Parts: sequence; C-alpha cells; structure tokens
Amino acid sequence: MLRSLSIVAVLTAFAGAQDASLKFRSVAPGVWAADVGAPEPFSLLSVAGGSPMVAAMKALPDASFPFAKGSARGWARGGQSSLRFPLGAGEDVYGLGLGFKHVRRNRQIMTLHMDHWGATPGRTHAPVPFWVSSQGYGVLVDSARYVRVWVGTSLRKDAEDPPPLRDRNRDRNWQAHPRSDSIDILVPAPGARVYVFAGPTPLDAVRRFVLFSGGGAMPPRWGLGFTHRTPTRFTAKQITAEVDAFDAHGFPLDFIGLEPGWHSAAYPCTFEWDRERFPDPVGVVKALLDRRVRVNLWMNPYVRPGCALHKKLSPHAASHLVWNGIIPDYEVPAARELFTTHLEKETVGIGVSGFKIDEVDGFDSWLWPDVARFPSGLAAEQIRQTYGLRLQVMMYDLFKKRDRRTWGLVRGTNAGAARLPFVIYNDAYSHQDFIRALCSSSFLGVLWTPEVRSSKTGEEWLRRMETVCFSPMAMLNAWSSGTRPWSFPEVEDRVREVALLRMRLMPYLYTAFAEYRFRGVPPMRAMPLVDGWADVGDAATRRERVQDQFFVGDAILVAPLFAGESKRSVLLPKGRWYDFYTGALIGTGGVHEVAPKDGRMPVFVKEGGMVPLGPPLLRAPKPGEGIALEIRHYGNHASRRRLYSDDGETFAFERGEHGWADLIVDLDESGQRTGRIENEDPRFHRYTSVTWRFLGR
Amino acid sequence: MLRSLSIVAVLTAFAGAQDASLKFRSVAPGVWAADVGAPEPFSLLSVAGGSPMVAAMKALPDASFPFAKGSARGWARGGQSSLRFPLGAGEDVYGLGLGFKHVRRNRQIMTLHMDHWGATPGRTHAPVPFWVSSQGYGVLVDSARYVRVWVGTSLRKDAEDPPPLRDRNRDRNWQAHPRSDSIDILVPAPGARVYVFAGPTPLDAVRRFVLFSGGGAMPPRWGLGFTHRTPTRFTAKQITAEVDAFDAHGFPLDFIGLEPGWHSAAYPCTFEWDRERFPDPVGVVKALLDRRVRVNLWMNPYVRPGCALHKKLSPHAASHLVWNGIIPDYEVPAARELFTTHLEKETVGIGVSGFKIDEVDGFDSWLWPDVARFPSGLAAEQIRQTYGLRLQVMMYDLFKKRDRRTWGLVRGTNAGAARLPFVIYNDAYSHQDFIRALCSSSFLGVLWTPEVRSSKTGEEWLRRMETVCFSPMAMLNAWSSGTRPWSFPEVEDRVREVALLRMRLMPYLYTAFAEYRFRGVPPMRAMPLVDGWADVGDAATRRERVQDQFFVGDAILVAPLFAGESKRSVLLPKGRWYDFYTGALIGTGGVHEVAPKDGRMPVFVKEGGMVPLGPPLLRAPKPGEGIALEIRHYGNHASRRRLYSDDGETFAFERGEHGWADLIVDLDESGQRTGRIENEDPRFHRYTSVTWRFLGR
Repeated sequence: MLRSLSIVAVLTAFAGAQDASLKFRSVAPGVWAADVGAPEPFSLLSVAGGSPMVAAMKALPDASFPFAKGSARGWARGGQSSLRFPLGAGEDVYGLGLGFKHVRRNRQIMTLHMDHWGATPGRTHAPVPFWVSSQGYGVLVDSARYVRVWVGTSLRKDAEDPPPLRDRNRDRNWQAHPRSDSIDILVPAPGARVYVFAGPTPLDAVRRFVLFSGGGAMPPRWGLGFTHRTPTRFTAKQITAEVDAFDAHGFPLDFIGLEPGWHSAAYPCTFEWDRERFPDPVGVVKALLDRRVRVNLWMNPYVRPGCALHKKLSPHAASHLVWNGIIPDYEVPAARELFTTHLEKETVGIGVSGFKIDEVDGFDSWLWPDVARFPSGLAAEQIRQTYGLRLQVMMYDLFKKRDRRTWGLVRGTNAGAARLPFVIYNDAYSHQDFIRALCSSSFLGVLWTPEVRSSKTGEEWLRRMETVCFSPMAMLNAWSSGTRPWSFPEVEDRVREVALLRMRLMPYLYTAFAEYRFRGVPPMRAMPLVDGWADVGDAATRRERVQDQFFVGDAILVAPLFAGESKRSVLLPKGRWYDFYTGALIGTGGVHEVAPKDGRMPVFVKEGGMVPLGPPLLRAPKPGEGIALEIRHYGNHASRRRLYSDDGETFAFERGEHGWADLIVDLDESGQRTGRIENEDPRFHRYTSVTWRFLGR
Repeated sequence: MLRSLSIVAVLTAFAGAQDASLKFRSVAPGVWAADVGAPEPFSLLSVAGGSPMVAAMKALPDASFPFAKGSARGWARGGQSSLRFPLGAGEDVYGLGLGFKHVRRNRQIMTLHMDHWGATPGRTHAPVPFWVSSQGYGVLVDSARYVRVWVGTSLRKDAEDPPPLRDRNRDRNWQAHPRSDSIDILVPAPGARVYVFAGPTPLDAVRRFVLFSGGGAMPPRWGLGFTHRTPTRFTAKQITAEVDAFDAHGFPLDFIGLEPGWHSAAYPCTFEWDRERFPDPVGVVKALLDRRVRVNLWMNPYVRPGCALHKKLSPHAASHLVWNGIIPDYEVPAARELFTTHLEKETVGIGVSGFKIDEVDGFDSWLWPDVARFPSGLAAEQIRQTYGLRLQVMMYDLFKKRDRRTWGLVRGTNAGAARLPFVIYNDAYSHQDFIRALCSSSFLGVLWTPEVRSSKTGEEWLRRMETVCFSPMAMLNAWSSGTRPWSFPEVEDRVREVALLRMRLMPYLYTAFAEYRFRGVPPMRAMPLVDGWADVGDAATRRERVQDQFFVGDAILVAPLFAGESKRSVLLPKGRWYDFYTGALIGTGGVHEVAPKDGRMPVFVKEGGMVPLGPPLLRAPKPGEGIALEIRHYGNHASRRRLYSDDGETFAFERGEHGWADLIVDLDESGQRTGRIENEDPRFHRYTSVTWRFLGR
C-alpha cells in the first residue's frame, strides 16, 4: 500500500549520519566539555545550579585529558544525538544511576529514567548520567532527557579492538556477548553537552565532579544525629510523648519527622497544618526546638484543590494531575516564588528545620505521563528528570536565605545535586539492596540512607541499625510501622550502643562531610574510591565485595552483616588493618573471613588511621558547646589528620567561619606514640578534655 | 552556574503546546486516518506493504465512527507527538504488543519496543501499536518508533469523567490509582498517523485491521501438518533417519526444520551449506520432497565475514555488528536484491520450502544499539522495529515469485504482518505464558506457536502437545533437546492421537485460515473476539479466563490443561455447549468446572457448530487428492457452515482458483438432523466419502 514511501524516506533522511570526534575544551581544572549537535539549554546542571569550586579543583593532582581525544565521538541527526567513549579490556564502569542490584555497570544497557525502585536498571531515584571508570576518570552527559546507555555491548565495524570471530556450530568458546570496546549513549534530543572529569584516580574524578557541581552538602551538626519519623496520624501530644520516650530510654534524637498527617489533607497536599492534630503548630515546633529536637515535614509537591496554594498555583500547573492534585511547574519563576513564600510562612518561618520531599520520582502510574504539557514549554520528560532537583534547590535556598542549614530527604534527584542537603530514600527494603545503593551513591555525588523501618527479628533490627548509623542519615522511619529503637528488647542495649556510637562519631563524620563540602570527597564511599583497592583480590572477588562493604570518612571500613550471618568475607585494601573496636590486628590487604565473637558488625581501620570521638550525647552539641574528645589512633605509624569544626548551624562556615585542626601522631625512638592537636580554632574546636587512645601494635 | 539558561529554555520552547482534536478522514470502509504533526513516511505499514481488501471490508457490518471524534486529540512539538483516546469506565483494552503475562492491558504503561521475551511489558516479539477496545473498535498508531502508551493511568485537569478527590489521612477508600478516562500515547517523532477501525464488535475491528493490512496469511496445506526441528548438528543422513523414525512410529510429519548446522558457519551466518554435514544439498532436499517432507531453514540475518554474501552486502551494512556479522540494511533496495538472489540460488531454487527467521527481535545486548547508523539514513530504532517485518516481506515475495506458498517462523514482527506467512515463536517456555501469547496474538494480526521443546514429565509433554496441535503451527522444536514425539513412552499413544487429530482437523483448520485470508477472521482467537463472551460471567472471571482458554475456527473452544491439573474452570459464552469428543451436553453459557474422565484436554463445540474432519494422514493431502470426509454436527439445531478448499500449494487461489462449499444441516419435523453439501467445487472439494455424525441432543 505504502511501499513506495519507504524509498522516499530513504532519500530524504540520508544526511548527517557520520560521527565525528568530540571537540573538548577546558572548562575547569581537569574538566573538559564538548558538545554534540545543539545541546538544550535546559539541563541537569542548569537546574542544580551550583558553581564550580575552581580553587579546590586546582588543588587536586594535576591531570591531563584521560584518554585519546579522538576516541570520543558523536553525531546528531533527526532529533537524536549520540556519544561514544572508549572502554578498555578489564576497565570497570561505575555510576550511571543509583543501583540497588548492581554497583558495577559493565554489560548493562540502561535508560536513565527517574523512577521509584523495582523496574529495569536505570529507572531509579537518581538516574544520574555520570560514570566513573576504573581507569580514573568520569564522564557526565548533562541532558535532562531519558538518556540511553550501552556499557560495553555494542560491536562496531570500525572497532579498534574487535573480538574474535567464532563459529557456534563448531567452537565451544563461541560467545553470545563478545566484548565491545565502547560505551555508547543515545540522547533523544538534538544535542547534548558532555563533560570529562580527569583523575588520576577514580576518587579524584568523583571529587572533580562534586566540586564542579558546587561541592558536597554540609549538614548542620544535628543532621548527623539520630532521627525518627512518627506514625502519620500522630498528634502534637503523641509527638511530645515520643520525644519523652526516647529520652527515657536513653536513645539519641536530634530531629523528628512528621508524615502526611501534619497536612490538613494529603495525597495531594494542602501545605496547611491539620488543626485537629496540631491546634498550635507554632507552639509545638517551638516546644520541640526548646528541647533541641528539630522538626522535618513530609510533603509531596502536588497541590490539593481547595487549599490556598491551589488557587495561586493553578495558572502555573501542568495539563495533568497527580492524585487529583495540580503539578506546579517550578520552571516558571512565579510558581517558585508562590510556593516558597507559602512554605516560609507556614513552616520554615515558625522553626521547621527540614523537609522530606516525596513522590518526585515515580512510579509512572502515579506521576504524570510523558504527554503532559507544562506552562514553561519544557517536555514532561525534562520536568520528570529534574522535579526533585528543582524542589531541593528551592527548599535549600529558602533555608539559606535565613542563614540556617537544613538536612532533609528526597526521593528523586539527579546530576549536580552534591551541594544540596538532601539524602535519598525509598520504599524498598532489602538490606542488601540498601547497602548496594549506599555504595552506588558515592559515584554520583548523591547521598543515600538505608533507613530502618521494621524487622522480622531482633537480629535483623540490630543489623539494619548498625548500617544506618554509618550512613548519611541515621533514620528510623516508623511512619507506618510505629516501631521504636527499643521495640526488640533482646537487642535494645546493642541498638542503643550503636546509636550512641553514631553520636560519638560526630567529630569524625562532621569532618568527613567537611571534606565533601570543601574537597569533594564523598563521606561514604564504594571500595573503588579507596586507595589500594585495585591492588588486592582478583577481579571476581572485587566485583562481589564492591557490593557489600564500604568506606566512611578517611579511616573506617564497614563490612555489614546481614540477618542470618555470623561471619562474612571482607576484602581489605593494601595496607595493615585493625579492628575498630579493639585495635586487634586483622592483617594486611586481601581476603579475610571475619566472624566477630561479640557479634558486632565488623569495622576496620587502616594503619595510621585516626578516629576522633565525642561523648555519647542524646543531642548534637550546641554551637560552641565544649565536648570531651577521644582520639583513637591505629597501628604503630606516625600520621597526620585533620579535624573540622564550625558553628554547626549557619552558613557562616562558607564565609570563612570554620576551622581545621591538625591531629598529629609521632613515634619516638622506642616506637611509642604521642599525639597532639595543632591549629585549633578556639571558636569551634572546644574540648573539655582530649584523650588519645593508641590502638593496634 | 547555568541558572539563567533555564529561563532561556522556557522562553524559546513555549510554543505549540496546545492539543487539538484529530481530524479523521475515511480511508477504507469503516477505517479512518488522522495525522498528528508530520507523520514519518517510513512506518510499520509502509514496510509491511499490504493493500487494503476493500471489497471484503465493504461486506462487513456497516459501522459509523466509534466514539465522539472530538475526544481523540493530539499535539506535536519539539520532536515528540502525542495522541489521546477516550477510555470509558468498564472498558477493556486488548492488544498493544504480544503479551506473555497479560492479555488485557488496562492500567499498563508500556514502551512498545521490539525485543525478546522477559523484560518489561511492551518489550516483545510483536510490539504492535494496535489495540482493541471492548467497546468494539480498534486503533493503530502507525509509527516505527518506540511508542509509549499509558492505558488508563493519566489524570488530567480537563478530564470529562474525573475520579473523586480523597484524603489519605482520613479516607480508607483513598486510591493510589484513581481511574483515568484516557489512553495516552507518546511517539518520539515529529508526527504520526493513526487509524481507527470500526466494529461494531471487537472481532469486526480486528477483521478490519487484518483486511486493511491485506488479509490474513494463507498457509499451504502442508503448513498445517506436523513439523519437527532437528538437532543443530544433524547431518543429511541423520535427518533422513529422523523422517524414517516418524514414519515408523506412525507420527505425522509435513516439514522438517534444519537449525544453524546447515550453514557452513553460524552466528553470524554464511548462508552457504555446510558441505561436511550436507555434501549434496540438492539431493537431500529433493529426497525429502519425494517423501513429501518439506525443508525449513533457520537463519539469523547477520552475515559472516568471509562468505560470498559478506562482500556483496558490506557496502549496504550498518555501522555496527551482531556477533561480528554485518547487519545489512534492507531498506536499501540493492541489498534486498543481493540477499534474495543468493537465497533463491542456494535454497528456494533447490526446493527449500520455508525459513525460520531468528534474532530479529532482541535482546538489546545481542542486537545493534540505537546509536547504530544505517545506509538508508533511517534511525536504528526504526530498523529495529521493522527488521523482522522486512525480512518476512522479502522471503514471502521470493516464494510468491515462484508461485509457491510458504509457512515459516519469525521471532520479530509488527503491525501489518497479517498477510505474511510466518508464525512467531521464542525461547521462553512457560506453558501458561505460551497460551496467554496465543490469546494475545489474535488481537494483533499475528500468529503465535506454543512450540513443544522438552518436558520434565510425560504429562507435561502431553499437555504441551495438545495445545500446539490447536495452534497455527504444530511444532516440535528439538534443535537443542533432541526430543521426539515418542520420547515419553507412557504418553506416546495419547500424543499420537492428538497429532493425528491435528491432521484430521485439516479441512476445518484450512477453512479457518481461508476465513483469515479472505475475511480477516483470526483462526485462533481470544475469548473477547467470540460471540456471547460479554454476556457471561463477571468481569473478574472474564479477566481470568481471557488468559487461559481460546477459540479455534468457527466452532471449537479449547480449554488447555497444564501439567498437574486434572480439572479446571472454563467460562463458556452464551449458548449451549457440547463436548467435542463425545457430544455430551456440557450446559449453557457461564462458569463450568470440568474434570475430563479420560484426561483429554477439554474441547467444546457450540450448538449448531460443525467440524469437518479428514483422515489421520501422516502427510497433508496432495493437490487434488481425495479424502474421506467426516462432518461432525453438534446439538439439535439447523445450521449452515462453509468449507474451503484450493490446490493447497500455489497462489492460484488468489486468482480465483478456490472453492467454498456449503455444509447444511436441516431438522426434519421430528427433529432428526440431515446433512448435505452444496456448491462443492469439484476441482478442490474431492472426497472419497462423506460421513455425517450428529452429536449432542
């Protein structure tokens, strides 16, 4: 019927099919950009809005362009654009979206698509189109489209390193998946901008990406404390009682999360207090603040018919609805202004300290379809990829304007989010998946919490509590279960011990975040971002262990136990390693089977590592509050570390109001260690006492 | 950093965001077309290449446009186009790609993407963007792009039938998925053409779609016989011995499939005979033909370096490779010519009767990436969606040129394929999934075989054999297992019985295919395409049974048993129903629990139904061969049916060389039935005897 038309198509479409080398230009120290086609001005980084920290980038090791420039190629044609990067034999690829099942991405084919969990790889809460190569560089495709990626599966006629040709009829070594020498990308848009981040190490590449995005997020000190989210229908009174119960049980609590029930109606939301449950919102927030407990408020951004915001935002809303609520288009500046003004008045202005931004990820069946139209004229796909990012920027700016730091939660984010003080969470609950996500997050400039919600057994409860206390947010999310830290009496003491360890680790963790903020070093890191990792084990062991152990700060290696396990295998990087708790020598780099006698989660420190600990407080220290400091040093090895401090609550630290002290351990002639602190800033480094503990011989 | 650019994007992109009513124009009886944006000339139907059978469409019941025209709307902007169709409360949606897990599509969100099995819904061997509404109409989106579809999940501000607003904080009836009143489509291209097919029934809509595509495929008579695919490394001698064994065991065998081993090397392929296994290809094909066994040859279309075709086709190949083989671009006419000329010489010209076209579907990790470039200038995505379709057209034309019908296999197809004599298969093996696919296929103008490969038990073997014998191709695919029909001695007799029943059903099935060819009625049909279905059961029961029972021809309802089941529930449409084998009355329309005493798969015939049976031959009858005909008539009901015949092998039937006889059963005054045949065409209706069997009272 239409047979002749295919020839017409052939003749008209035959144009521009050639690929060409990308032309890279330097845009920051160790960062190069190149364009294919005509990049769209609306991109992930344009929404994230950070400014490159050029000085910090200059301080990184000098690095030249990390691969032969001619081997990165691209084309643009017919509304699509394509990019290709080299992939060497044995080269490992990490990143490309928050992963729950995989940390390494080789041989995966993904569409990076903002979504809830559980669908295909690439559909995730942080579909960040950034990858890190084990060769020590990173690449960002700065497109707010659904970017498709083929990691080492594409075979080309012009491959530089083609696999052998085999005959399946005769050759037992025939391969269904011959090795490819490239990473291929399709951007469904007329063009895209791509950035290459030099190393020389994978960690350096991640650091450059984080610093290019504006540096990592700096929590308030209370953000590193323990947090608890109360059942959704809790009243002001019940919340007060919950704080009482934490105090009575001796469990730390720095901020408390109110779930949908604070809204007068929810799903979609009113953004107005429910006056039955909260007759005096100002009073309840103030009363909690007086007890040094902050309030975090849940929201989804869909606005309910009948509420004050609905009328204001309707002219700026999309064609579609979510749960019958309008979808404000926050790419329209007036919509941003209306929303933040309202939130400032109702929440931030009365002392609310943070938000949990829900439902900005997926599922497809909840959110708007890709056919929705937005007043800004942007495609639904572009809004979907960036909605969570935009809301974070808005909320962050709201707090920053008041010179108060915040620490919140978000369920959807994207590239450039490093500077935004929000931690990703979701509704999945496999403990193993949660740890993979924690590892995976560190490649992407995002943070993830393996939140604790409920458990089948006390053992599982403890295991989950252990890992969440080594994560960016030590959160119990009991919004639906009503569980409390002491709900399993058989492990109450052990859970309290680990929660208080979290509090004790605050000087250490706060410094780790300062390293993130100022130097781009993710506070929790997958093992390929740790020195000496590539030197131990075989490739198969590394691929396994990259999924279930991780590093925290500059000294601590965490090897989680999962329910049912009394022992596990751990792969220690090059060097000598000690048990964190006892200082016992574990051994040198390589595979170790560990079976902790006391049942505690295995935690290790490398020779020379230092862990500064504070007291086991129930709240984070107040600004300027002096604490008793204990500094643990591991192994007979002189070393030097830094200890960060600031006021813990405001942005004064960005204006230079912060201090880095030096922790120094020397060996005398007999090999005895002595420790000292230098360069303390008396405004911030306030200690009632300093104790050095030398562990490991 | 790039914050100001988002505003630029907003200003430049704000255009054309309004949707508008689609403007439909009549293009064939009961078929209307409308365009959104600028449809691409290269489309599914442009590749499929059929011509609408206007006269047959005119003979369908008169039908007006099936819904309010203004409620179908669309927009095109920024390289994307969108379509929206109404979806009523209680309206069911079928089609939208071959389904293995689902036949009904309500509440699904799919990307229709050519793929192997096992991924998300929509990724399938036949991602046909056509749906059938229970309201009695069909819609085709004729785009060769990855079309996205939201079936009743999108909520709009301007919904005509909005769901109620609920408060999750207080209302237990709050819904995570409120009902939507639309089907939404996104085509990632500047435009698309859409066709609406009137009913008045769902079957009429499917018939119009099939007839618009050029009518259904007409098999040669041997195509409906039994077929067996031999182990891949079988030699000519072993194949001969296999035919001997079938004959010795009294099992029918009409065509035999040679797997990759016929190629001198495979994956990718040479398209040249392996001279070790097949020293005399001409001789072996001829020897099999002399025994009336046809040969079907496996291929994947990727051409191996070093073979004769490789040199010829290289200039017309894509940028990428599959298993190191080139990917010829058959949208270049010269490439088609080179390939078919070669195949004609090596295979069709020496008597090969058909092909199995493998690996034209997926997985992504095997095939080319979407960044591949093709000489025709078409996008890789467009080639991916249509590659199997194009190869079918080429192979079909090759046989048609020689005036010989073929009946083959294909693993990837798309809209418009109804006329192409290929049956879809895959590598999955859940029996339940296979039956769902058989049901699903009938909405799409494609055919599916639930092939039998191997089994854990004799029972499973029998159950699979039973269903494959009621499918478009009665195939044992032993390419890897080496299983034979008699491999489970405990069920050998039962399996032989059902294989011979298949042979006996040939007059009935051949007529069913003629109804497909000339009148667009799919030979095997899901229950929503059967009269009286909507009148029985409740919605939940219909949704369950739509997945596991089906109709064959104009009289037979098949209710498969799966391994482990000795009984099952069946939902019979309105009317009186009889047991196919015994004529026992089952009852009237509604739910029946059936537990066949003899363990045979339940098969039912409706009052007035007729089943013409031939003899239990081991080969299909030769052209003009007379057979003993038995006509079974069920129930005390006068009725009239048609019986088709032609030469069984050539395309003479398309030139009028075919006959339709009338089978007529009358009741005399005492209620006794008499049967007669009228309008027999003596060239084709040749019977050595005719026996009427009146079953059911």
